[in-house]
Parts: sequence; structure tokens; C-alpha cells
Amino acid sequence: MADQTPGNEFDLIARHFAPLARAEPGAFGLTDDAAVLAVPEGRALVATTDTMVAGVHFLADLPAEAVGARLLRVNLSDLASMGAMPAAYVVSLSFPRDLSATERDDWAAGFARGLSADQDVFGVTLVGGDSVSAPGPLSLTLTAFGWIEPGREMRRSGAHDGELVYVSGTIGDAALGLEAERGNLQELAPEHRAALIDRFRRPVPRLQAGQGLVGIASAAADISDGLVADLGHICEASGVAAEIEVPSVPFSDAARAALAGHPELLEPMLTGGDDYELVFTAPKDARDAVAKVAVETGVPLTPIGTISRPASGEHGRVRVIGADGRDVAFAAGGYRHF
Amino acid sequence: MADQTPGNEFDLIARHFAPLARAEPGAFGLTDDAAVLAVPEGRALVATTDTMVAGVHFLADLPAEAVGARLLRVNLSDLASMGAMPAAYVVSLSFPRDLSATERDDWAAGFARGLSADQDVFGVTLVGGDSVSAPGPLSLTLTAFGWIEPGREMRRSGAHDGELVYVSGTIGDAALGLEAERGNLQELAPEHRAALIDRFRRPVPRLQAGQGLVGIASAAADISDGLVADLGHICEASGVAAEIEVPSVPFSDAARAALAGHPELLEPMLTGGDDYELVFTAPKDARDAVAKVAVETGVPLTPIGTISRPASGEHGRVRVIGADGRDVAFAAGGYRHF
Repeated sequence: MADQTPGNEFDLIARHFAPLARAEPGAFGLTDDAAVLAVPEGRALVATTDTMVAGVHFLADLPAEAVGARLLRVNLSDLASMGAMPAAYVVSLSFPRDLSATERDDWAAGFARGLSADQDVFGVTLVGGDSVSAPGPLSLTLTAFGWIEPGREMRRSGAHDGELVYVSGTIGDAALGLEAERGNLQELAPEHRAALIDRFRRPVPRLQAGQGLVGIASAAADISDGLVADLGHICEASGVAAEIEVPSVPFSDAARAALAGHPELLEPMLTGGDDYELVFTAPKDARDAVAKVAVETGVPLTPIGTISRPASGEHGRVRVIGADGRDVAFAAGGYRHF
Repeated sequence: MADQTPGNEFDLIARHFAPLARAEPGAFGLTDDAAVLAVPEGRALVATTDTMVAGVHFLADLPAEAVGARLLRVNLSDLASMGAMPAAYVVSLSFPRDLSATERDDWAAGFARGLSADQDVFGVTLVGGDSVSAPGPLSLTLTAFGWIEPGREMRRSGAHDGELVYVSGTIGDAALGLEAERGNLQELAPEHRAALIDRFRRPVPRLQAGQGLVGIASAAADISDGLVADLGHICEASGVAAEIEVPSVPFSDAARAALAGHPELLEPMLTGGDDYELVFTAPKDARDAVAKVAVETGVPLTPIGTISRPASGEHGRVRVIGADGRDVAFAAGGYRHF
């Protein structure tokens, strides 16, 4: 009975989103009140949710495909940091009321293309959602589901004095990519600018590395608030402190090129969010096991510092030590100046 | 490391929302990247999501407690319509940027009180969420999780020719409650006005009735778009048509009082949404089984019509037959005029 003009909610869902749900019979073609998902034998449910608003969490002119990819990947990164296997997601869209039916339909088509491409890459399926029109900017909420063996999840709270701090991939690219999106860093080679923008738009959730680190890492988080802040969250939850050495932090070629011209970019690179790499801790004698995960997944896992016993009142503190051996002090980014 | 001024996101979550997560160890006090929930042996996951925006889905001055209760109950109603047992939920809040920190804190406190009271009533626990500030009105997205024996869920698609159509509770109170919220229906007795407003603000998800109807009902939905439209969804998904008789539709005393003065209110009562009662179908020989569920749960389950074979091109059609035996024609509400 849904009216068939483009832009009608039922039509929008049927045309753009129902195809994304085809692989999961329990999604019922998005026509029922809820989805029903089989749970793999002996697994617990892992669930996470994130909201993104145009103009707040991404530039308002970011293409719809990129918004879809980014929203899904950011949520999958939370599953990765627990070591979970992703399975499915639901998504809710709030469209600005002043969009025309055609604009809304075009945007939904692009957004669904972005999601669809990533469903194949990451092995997840849309199983439900909601769509509303409201005053205000475009706003999107995605809730992702995954599975894990009960009790095996990586938490933020397991880091111990003397363990090594690792990161996956390279750090700071997304903060530089955002600069490039804003029209800065014009002096960089085009391929470097493009690489940084891609890292911001399409973060890579480290799902296989996360699953591989289960039983090896003592604590883990994904880098959404910035390396220093997210390592700080691990330290706080674990009642420890940490030191990281800037010369050990892995940077991409593009980031090194940017840093060469703008050494002051070190701060946003280490304190800006959006890398969606893993930061984790592991005992020193797990070094070979970590290296094996890196080889098997093709994701660099680099030791960048150590966990220490906190001085009184300083648990959660992250010291950043520069190439000259002196503490680097940042103004912002969750880093407490001392 | 979170700054401790009221209104800071970490502080907001720690003060108002972490207490709601205490009963579930796998929520990790809302301090980790995702929640981990044990799955009861032999159960499938049921998931549903709904977004509500101030000024669109509820009046902008609705008290925060009522918004919390309504948002949670609307989602639980979707679980009820599948026959699922509710377990947990995640909630995402987008606050208007122009709220002061104190206003935001006060609102969050009230919203959390509304959720907290209902957690106890319905046996669910907050396990995660997100909080952002953005231009535009207050916007909330809740995703609810429940469990069901695989394959036992009630769908919209199982209704057959000759079966009876039932509804739970009473119909139309919420549409009248919204009228009363808008300042209309002033001539009603205060207790009737209050009863109708309460039905709009605090819909009662029919969880026990839904669970009781598993294996008895052939198809089910909750009434969120209006009785006629949601029965139409069942008919469309099942490839059938339906006839309902107005004299059989259960109305509350307050609704009867409103109808007596305003017979034209019959249309919003039958086509307005928000009742969050169940509409379902069952074979005629299941009458006693349905009656037993009604007695056991204390929820009236009333036959209001029958499922019929659709004439060519008319599957999904719902005929509404008045006290005079003639078809009632409505202008709107998913009802196709003929």
C-alpha cells in the first residue's frame, strides 16, 4: 500500500536498502518489525553504536558513498578492538526536511552503494533500520553486531606494568587527511594528498588483526579519539601509565612528507582521532606471537612504548618522548600537560 | 582524563547512563568500545531500531522522562510483535548544540530516570550508546535486542483466508492522547484526558502477550502506523485481504467518551499510529488458546474481523465495516479508498 513516488520512506527502503539485506533471510527483506539472527554455537553477542552528523563528524559535502563506508567502518573498528567477528548491522537515517524527494533518493542511493561495497569486503549484512525526515542536518546512527567466544574479548582494562604498547598500521594519516579535505597541505604530491584523504574517508577496521590478537593482547582499543587519548583510556582503565617514543611511531610516506614541511603537525597526528587503528598492549614475551599475527594478516603491528607503574595520582597518564629524549607537551587531545 | 565539568560527554555518560548498565557486566560500565552479551542457549538474536526527533515524533516540550519511556517502549513493542524476550538496548543521543551544559545535563538526568524506571518493569538493561552535540533538534535512536527460539518468531506474512483478526488492549487511545496533548478534547473529564495522554506517552509493549502467542498466532505486527495500515501490512505480506467490524473494535471508556462527542474521531482512532498494541491473526480453532493467553497475561485479546481471499489486485486491502453494515471510507492512513 506504500505510495510509489520516489522519496517515500517505504519506497526508499525497498529500492536502496532491501537489496543490502538479501544475504540474510532473518532480515525479512526489511519488511517486518525486527530482524532475527542465528547465533553461532557458543558465541556471545558484541554490539556497538555510533552516530555521525553532517558538518560535525564529516564535511557536509562528503560524497554519500564515503559517508556510508566511513559510518560502517567506524563501527566495525569497535568490533575489531574487542577481537569480535562482525556479522550484521542496522542503520537509522535522519534526512534534512528541506531535501527534495529526488535529492533524498540520490543521496540514499549513493549511501547504499558505499555500504554495499563494504558489506562484501567485511562480511556483514544490513538487517534493519529506520528512516525519518527532520529539521537539522543529515544524521546517521549505525549499530553493529558481531560474535565472540564468551570471555575472550579484549578490554581496555588488562594492561600491566612492563608490557609493550603496540599500534597497527600507521598513525596520523586521518588527521592529515582531514587537513587535506579542508584544502590545506596543497604542497604535498597529489598521490600523497589522495592517500591521506582516503585514509580519513575510508578507515580500515583491523578486524583480522583484532581477532588474531585475542589471547595475545592484554588490553586493546581502537584509535577514535587520537593515539594519546585512546592509550590514555587503556591506562586509566588498567590503573597504569605509559610512555611512547615518537621515533618508534609508524608513519606513512605521505605523513612523513607532510611532517617534513610542517613539524607542528606532529601534535594533530598523535592527538587527532579517526585513525581507527588498534592500540594494544602485550607482555614482552608475546613479541613473537604479535609478529606472527602481523605476518598472517599483512597488517604492521609496531611496538611504540611501554606500560609503567603510575606515580601517585597519575594513572592514565601518557608520556610522549621525542627524538631528543625529552617529553613532548601537547596543548589538547586528552593529553594532560605536566 | 575526562574533564569533570557537567555536560562533558564522558561525565554525562558516567553520571546518568553508567548506572543504567550496572546489571549487565558485559556493558563494562559503558567505558569500553563495545558490549558483550551472553546469548541464552539455543536462542536467536532479535534486533530492532527506531529514531525519534523532537517536534517530529513527540512534542518538543514532552518531559525527558516521558521521552525515555516512550523511546524504549516503542522499540520493545517491535520485539513483542515477534514474540521475543527483551534483553538489552543501546541508545544514541544527539543534543541540540545551543543547549547549555546545565540544560543538557538536566535533560539527560530526566531521560535516564525514564529509562531506569522502565528497565525494572520490562527486564532490560542499557549496554552501550553514543552522545553527540549537533545543530538541529534533539534526536534519539534506540536499538533493542531480544532472544527467541529460532524459527518461532511471529512474522507479518503468515495470515490465511478464514482466520480471525485480533487486537490486544484498546485501540485509538494514543491518537486521542495526542489530540489532548495538543490542547484539544477539553470537554472530556480530567481522568479521561489524563488516561489518553498517558496512553500516548507511555505505550505498553505487549511483551508477555507476544511471547504467549508464539505458536498460536499465524501473523503479527505492532500498531505503530495505525490499525488499518498495520493490518494492511500483514495482509500485503500474507497475500490476503481483511475485513474488520467497527462495533467489535475494543475502545477504552475514555475513547468512548471522546467518540460520543466527536464521531469524526473514529478515523484518527483507526488510522492514527502509536497504539503499540498487537494486531494478529489466528485460525478459528485457536480461539480457546488465544483466550487462555489473554487470561494468563491479563491483556484483552479481542477478535475484530476476518482474513479473506483478496479479489484480483486487492491483496493488502482492509475493509472497515461500520455499525450500519456499510463500508467506512477514510481519506488517509494507509487505507485505500474504493
